[in-house]
Amino acid sequence: MLGRLYESQNCSASRALELVGERWSLLILRDAMFGGFTRFSQFQKSLGVATNILTKRLEDFVAEGLMDRQQEPGEQAEYVLTRKGQELMPIIIALTEWGDKWVRPGPIRYQSRSGQPVEMQLRGKTSGSRFGVADVVAVPR
Amino acid sequence: MLGRLYESQNCSASRALELVGERWSLLILRDAMFGGFTRFSQFQKSLGVATNILTKRLEDFVAEGLMDRQQEPGEQAEYVLTRKGQELMPIIIALTEWGDKWVRPGPIRYQSRSGQPVEMQLRGKTSGSRFGVADVVAVPR
Repeated sequence: MLGRLYESQNCSASRALELVGERWSLLILRDAMFGGFTRFSQFQKSLGVATNILTKRLEDFVAEGLMDRQQEPGEQAEYVLTRKGQELMPIIIALTEWGDKWVRPGPIRYQSRSGQPVEMQLRGKTSGSRFGVADVVAVPR
Repeated sequence: MLGRLYESQNCSASRALELVGERWSLLILRDAMFGGFTRFSQFQKSLGVATNILTKRLEDFVAEGLMDRQQEPGEQAEYVLTRKGQELMPIIIALTEWGDKWVRPGPIRYQSRSGQPVEMQLRGKTSGSRFGVADVVAVPR
């Protein structure tokens, strides 16, 4: 019943949250994105997550198209973020920025490869003008 | 055990997710932000959520400082987003954008009060230069 009512909300934000909205999912994706981890053993060592949970999460990510599973003969399988998975990054950065500001500063910051601090900004799609949250409304597509 | 291991990750993104990472929480916040809803009956009618769940979520939002509970004599209580709650908007927009692109287009879009389509963009904090997800790394603060 929850599922049906919830589904009827037909909300893109909710559907995205299904994929990252579980504790371990977010941490696994974070380690893949920013730690460059690809192997089961790397995630397991970094997170201390139970192996059955980690197995399930990685399988789900492959099934959802967030990761590709690649395996060379005699090697451990590698789980490599797809473009779809990599593009969850803005969500993770936005979550981090909010937590840093409103809960307490966390241990990392984001920067460009050239060393510039980066952040998520609300901008006009075509004008590039900057907006604050009080300036934004939601309208039917 | 999960809680302790998880807590040790000390991750701002995870802490923010604690607050929005539950299905109904996100939908309630969305209706407060973009529907201007403040009353229990408005959320209940919009979402069809069980009253005990809605009561608990609104109480939690007040306890977390995401909403203020205001009540005039003889009136229904109103739950009004605080600044801390309002600033969850970029996360909700980023979730929506990802879902629109990678799952399927949802029913709403975001625009400025002046009618310009808006989006979340990854930018240099001081330079304002635009970056893609492949350009970003995480470093210790």
